[in-house]
Amino acid sequence: MKPMGPIPPWFTSEESMLLIGGCGAASLVDEAGDTPLFVYDMGVIQTQVDALRDAMPAELAIHYAIKANPFGPLLERMVGLVDGFDIASGGELEMALEAGQSPDHISFAGPGKRDDEITSAIRAGVTLNLESEGEAARALAIATRLGRTPKLAVRVNPDFDLRGSGMRMGGGAKPFGVDAERAPALARLMIDAGAEWRGWHIFAGSQALDAQALIETQAATVALAARLSEEVGVSPPLVNLGGGLGIPYFPGDTRLDVQPIGAALAEALGKRSPILRETHFALELGRWLVGEAGVYLTRVIDVKESQGERFVITDGGMHHQLAASGNFGTVVRRNYPVAVANRFGSPNTDEPVSVVGCLCTPLDRLGDKILLPEIHVGDLVAVFVAGAYGATASPTAFLGHPAPKEILVE
Amino acid sequence: MKPMGPIPPWFTSEESMLLIGGCGAASLVDEAGDTPLFVYDMGVIQTQVDALRDAMPAELAIHYAIKANPFGPLLERMVGLVDGFDIASGGELEMALEAGQSPDHISFAGPGKRDDEITSAIRAGVTLNLESEGEAARALAIATRLGRTPKLAVRVNPDFDLRGSGMRMGGGAKPFGVDAERAPALARLMIDAGAEWRGWHIFAGSQALDAQALIETQAATVALAARLSEEVGVSPPLVNLGGGLGIPYFPGDTRLDVQPIGAALAEALGKRSPILRETHFALELGRWLVGEAGVYLTRVIDVKESQGERFVITDGGMHHQLAASGNFGTVVRRNYPVAVANRFGSPNTDEPVSVVGCLCTPLDRLGDKILLPEIHVGDLVAVFVAGAYGATASPTAFLGHPAPKEILVE
Repeated sequence: MKPMGPIPPWFTSEESMLLIGGCGAASLVDEAGDTPLFVYDMGVIQTQVDALRDAMPAELAIHYAIKANPFGPLLERMVGLVDGFDIASGGELEMALEAGQSPDHISFAGPGKRDDEITSAIRAGVTLNLESEGEAARALAIATRLGRTPKLAVRVNPDFDLRGSGMRMGGGAKPFGVDAERAPALARLMIDAGAEWRGWHIFAGSQALDAQALIETQAATVALAARLSEEVGVSPPLVNLGGGLGIPYFPGDTRLDVQPIGAALAEALGKRSPILRETHFALELGRWLVGEAGVYLTRVIDVKESQGERFVITDGGMHHQLAASGNFGTVVRRNYPVAVANRFGSPNTDEPVSVVGCLCTPLDRLGDKILLPEIHVGDLVAVFVAGAYGATASPTAFLGHPAPKEILVE
Repeated sequence: MKPMGPIPPWFTSEESMLLIGGCGAASLVDEAGDTPLFVYDMGVIQTQVDALRDAMPAELAIHYAIKANPFGPLLERMVGLVDGFDIASGGELEMALEAGQSPDHISFAGPGKRDDEITSAIRAGVTLNLESEGEAARALAIATRLGRTPKLAVRVNPDFDLRGSGMRMGGGAKPFGVDAERAPALARLMIDAGAEWRGWHIFAGSQALDAQALIETQAATVALAARLSEEVGVSPPLVNLGGGLGIPYFPGDTRLDVQPIGAALAEALGKRSPILRETHFALELGRWLVGEAGVYLTRVIDVKESQGERFVITDGGMHHQLAASGNFGTVVRRNYPVAVANRFGSPNTDEPVSVVGCLCTPLDRLGDKILLPEIHVGDLVAVFVAGAYGATASPTAFLGHPAPKEILVE
């Protein structure tokens, strides 16, 4: 038997049926028409946003990194919930505008922006987070050609990382942003060239569950922004402090308490350098806002034995939930939280089962030797923490299966 | 500096431009309209098929597992080149029929076939490789409802694996097929129920570069097919011996010589049990037929320094070539073969570079600290061995970038 990650604590059931946003899982499948299905619960997202606003200093803006989940109806709802969108491609620019976000509240980061993407962004009037001197030169040239004043920020590769983060985005040689020591010169160049100076984007890491590490990183980020601004001699309108707040996926992971993080950030901002006095600050979060709001539902097609082990075969799999299969940035495969949606809360049997997908590859495993209640063909398996980096971060065309369905519940 | 895998030996250049199927890489990009671009060279595939037919016993059929690369124009050409298609979903069934393959030469394996997929398959008249007793019962019930005689084979989970294979598909508890000791009873049941008995599908592993391991596995597979058939007392029309032939991706990998494998298989077939005398045999290959025929071309958007390291940023990445980024079934990331397509054969500089994609994640790396010729914005990077499990086995929607283009050259 292998352990699995914790099921988010708010999930309940009615007559053993898992409720998502107050609706039974089976009814949601009926409504969507079929499995496999991603269900996103806006109530959970609202709760996350509320908790964050409650914990963080009032002046702090909350940005949504739409790469985490760009499902159209969800994006539309996020417009009213957060203060801005962060995008990573020309395609995401279209999605953000389509969802109704104002270009004034969109910023575009990404180490490999093509000329056509920079052109669309400047034309739309969104902020470009410049990732290199070369990109800066291209942006200026394109803006001149368009006869527009570009809104430019500089993405900084900080000289520190976020301890314990799932993905380090700073503290060493990185393809992202401009090394901190070169950032002031680039900012000066943009200001002198007549660009609208937007400030700094400093992203040190993501998916950290260590509050103390986040606190130290945010303080270091505020200090770095001050140091860079002082070198430039210009107060930045905005400092994007990055994200980094993690969510529990695996055995032993615990939920972050954002209260002490907010208190520490308030303290760091309270004593900030005078050059940042008028500066706005933002946190950029993707996974933390939406990850726990998603449940991936897939139906059991077969239950079989092989060499004394028990396999539950579902109609979903790694083509929809690559991360849950352990094939997305993880070295050692660990189990996401999984349940039998229509026997939610029923006692587990003592015989471990492996829940696999329908693909013809041993990589396609959603739960490895886990304990579940008794399970039969036709049952619904729920894979939790499926709200971020699910459908769009998976190889949906693999083996020619249909794309997963997605619905939003309130 | 880190090494990279071997560039397939037949690639040449003209005026330093990489030729693929006799065409310059830059012209192919012009023809396709843009990068990123997958180019598949039918000439290479033809050479692979010829080499295999030359090495293998004349009676051996060659099947193509279309999951490796289901690009429409390629599938159409494969119909005339191989003796059958192996499919893994209802979607692949449509692709195979669309490409012009006859249902008589299509077989369908996959541990999680949905009822609608089984229905389409029986209606179309393709062979189902049954993966469990439960699936067998569903197939019989659906055939009865349709008033059709189903063509059924049994996929066997062999009691041995393919030593040194990249993916083990046998030799232990597996979600694929029916354990060897239960297979004869299931076959008997299908025959007694009036199904058209098609024989055995035995797949022990894939991506092996050890000829001796392949030889032993094929001999064991023939022997297992005989033992199972003797238990049933019926000669199987077809035994699908699986695949397993690997191709070189990584440093130290060497190309398989198929001649000794073919000679050994001829010997194994020559002394086969009388019950297999009239049986046809097939090899099912995907990657081996098409993998080396593909080149992924992506354009350099930026070249930058960070903390003394050099990064080449391209407009492609892991959203198109997940496996090359090291995030598809590999534990330790190793470098695929990579070249600068428009400086092919030029001497390398002695300064390592990391070739990364355009995504905002440190996972998006196509070449880690490799040696390349001098490289500039606008250059074309070629990632080799991109013909199998590329475009369809990657999260193409990730971060909202456009799908890659694909072309076939003769």
